[in-house]
Amino acid sequence: MSILRMGIIGYGGMAHWHQERVRLVDGIEVVGVYDVLPAQRQKGEADGYLAYPSRDALLADERINCVLVATPNHVHKENVIAALDAGKHVICEKPVTLTVADLDEMIAASRRNEKLFTVHQNRRWDHDYLVAKEVFRSGALGEVYTVQSCLSGTGGLINGWRAFPEYGGGMVYDWGVHFLDQLLDMIPGRILTVFADLHSVKNSLVDDYFHISLKFDSGLSVITELGTFMLRSKPRWYMAGNGGTMVINSFDGADGIITKVSKLAEAVEPVIVQTDAGPTRTFAPQPPETREDFPLPELIRDKTAFYRNVRDAIAGKENLIVRPEQVRRVLSLIEAVFVSAREGRSIPFEEKEIVWRES
Amino acid sequence: MSILRMGIIGYGGMAHWHQERVRLVDGIEVVGVYDVLPAQRQKGEADGYLAYPSRDALLADERINCVLVATPNHVHKENVIAALDAGKHVICEKPVTLTVADLDEMIAASRRNEKLFTVHQNRRWDHDYLVAKEVFRSGALGEVYTVQSCLSGTGGLINGWRAFPEYGGGMVYDWGVHFLDQLLDMIPGRILTVFADLHSVKNSLVDDYFHISLKFDSGLSVITELGTFMLRSKPRWYMAGNGGTMVINSFDGADGIITKVSKLAEAVEPVIVQTDAGPTRTFAPQPPETREDFPLPELIRDKTAFYRNVRDAIAGKENLIVRPEQVRRVLSLIEAVFVSAREGRSIPFEEKEIVWRES
Repeated sequence: MSILRMGIIGYGGMAHWHQERVRLVDGIEVVGVYDVLPAQRQKGEADGYLAYPSRDALLADERINCVLVATPNHVHKENVIAALDAGKHVICEKPVTLTVADLDEMIAASRRNEKLFTVHQNRRWDHDYLVAKEVFRSGALGEVYTVQSCLSGTGGLINGWRAFPEYGGGMVYDWGVHFLDQLLDMIPGRILTVFADLHSVKNSLVDDYFHISLKFDSGLSVITELGTFMLRSKPRWYMAGNGGTMVINSFDGADGIITKVSKLAEAVEPVIVQTDAGPTRTFAPQPPETREDFPLPELIRDKTAFYRNVRDAIAGKENLIVRPEQVRRVLSLIEAVFVSAREGRSIPFEEKEIVWRES
Repeated sequence: MSILRMGIIGYGGMAHWHQERVRLVDGIEVVGVYDVLPAQRQKGEADGYLAYPSRDALLADERINCVLVATPNHVHKENVIAALDAGKHVICEKPVTLTVADLDEMIAASRRNEKLFTVHQNRRWDHDYLVAKEVFRSGALGEVYTVQSCLSGTGGLINGWRAFPEYGGGMVYDWGVHFLDQLLDMIPGRILTVFADLHSVKNSLVDDYFHISLKFDSGLSVITELGTFMLRSKPRWYMAGNGGTMVINSFDGADGIITKVSKLAEAVEPVIVQTDAGPTRTFAPQPPETREDFPLPELIRDKTAFYRNVRDAIAGKENLIVRPEQVRRVLSLIEAVFVSAREGRSIPFEEKEIVWRES
């Protein structure tokens, strides 16, 4: 019998994404699915799954020990709590919910039922992110002073539920929740301050551009910027330290470079250059031999790490990687982002030390 | 007789830059120079100028009606006030001084003597800036939501007085004063909030990296970022609106592009794309035919506009372009930048309407 026997509530786009991964991992199987839409239930049957006539029927099936909640965001909470109260472990799609207060009810349900509760923060295993994290932690750039995580799209219009606030739409909930989760996973220490700008450029009801600044207690400055209507692309990652600079251009995570100063630089005298814009010595172009380029580290790509970890956490063999308290920290930060943008001021975030509890 | 008969106090690097321009403008001549260093005075003589033995001797020469103060920053104030009190018009190098309180004393001296007082904010005529301003104001990008002004250098170490706080060193005073002056000249309206991060990456005593966010009352978000040790370059300007995006890559101001959505884009259905990092529709790569590129506007390059304006303002034929109240606004903003960076919070800036007085 599989360790993780899954029921899926909400059989839409993301459910297929999960199935594809589940198939690659030993010890996991999908028992059956439920969707409020009959057409989606029929689709589940056509895909070869048991389709339950109701959510309660799914939750009552004792063969299922873990529920994946992949519904629209605004009904995550009721489904997650119902599943936990039915004695199931729960994996919830992101954003887990829209407020910390709602999340706290979900976490309480997990605790009182002593069941695992995690969120599908899959982009913690994105290749570009893992490369950025490896470079950050390796010390290759010396002491890093700025980390910039950016995504620019050209489509403008947001589709489906993402265009409506009542369904948890907008880019902060859709992508900000990933990018902030990555940054908080990568960077140790407290976030002292949050400052955010949001715009609705092509979508009247929700944010489709954000620029969020975080100040860490180490002094590190962090920026994450995203727009659905930025027609000239920016690098996915820009990271600079006192020892060098890294750029990762795309999600691929192999398309980028690390640049450091070469030994030769010490022999080159600074000169004053007359640019079209006036004289400058500080920004005089330097000869190429003063710099040296290095390739990004090569990491193993792994599509199944999330599910292997959930399986092994249920089996008691590993600590859970995406922990509820981490998800809660990101959601608190998102709440601060919205307050900052609305009130046009920075928001103090973590005055006290965060103690990381191994779960 | 020339309209503008100049004496130069401080015969260093910038003085030569001024002479080169003065030579190209009718109605301006350099009468003589003074420097505290005898070697620089000798250099002035060797260059064919009268070299005064003291500042007072220069100020006493009735042939001089305008003094250029091109000394180190920390002695701008005393020289500017002495020159105004001697009945001369004054052009001061930037940054005019380090505090608004000092600037107010200089402005008071200009008023009580009824003499013109301006600051050499020469980068208001930089080609890249004029192109950016033209694009911003033309409406080519629709309603602009973000303006980003950036400069990255690879040298790291700052030279001479720029490395010492007591001489007004650091990149906010050296370059921030230009970039903020440009942004405030380009963008109408009040600045509601300032949020700034400063770092000393390669120089222990002064800032050599800044990232400054401004929020305007129109909702426009503005960023200016500069680092002396950012080894991968960023575009000089990035500007995005609901009608398109502009990039200017360098000071040249011709190296860049405007991108808009083409008519064809409406016919293209959004698709869901499975990237290495998971599915996305919002950020699915769009076919190239959905976008259309346009060249940047071509503007006339003009090295002499600053001096022609000062000459014509002295002659009463034109309004002064770089006005003391504008310089004061930028310096107030710089004070807010330092407070924001030191205290790790945003600073409210202009709660009340700014009334622009034509001088």
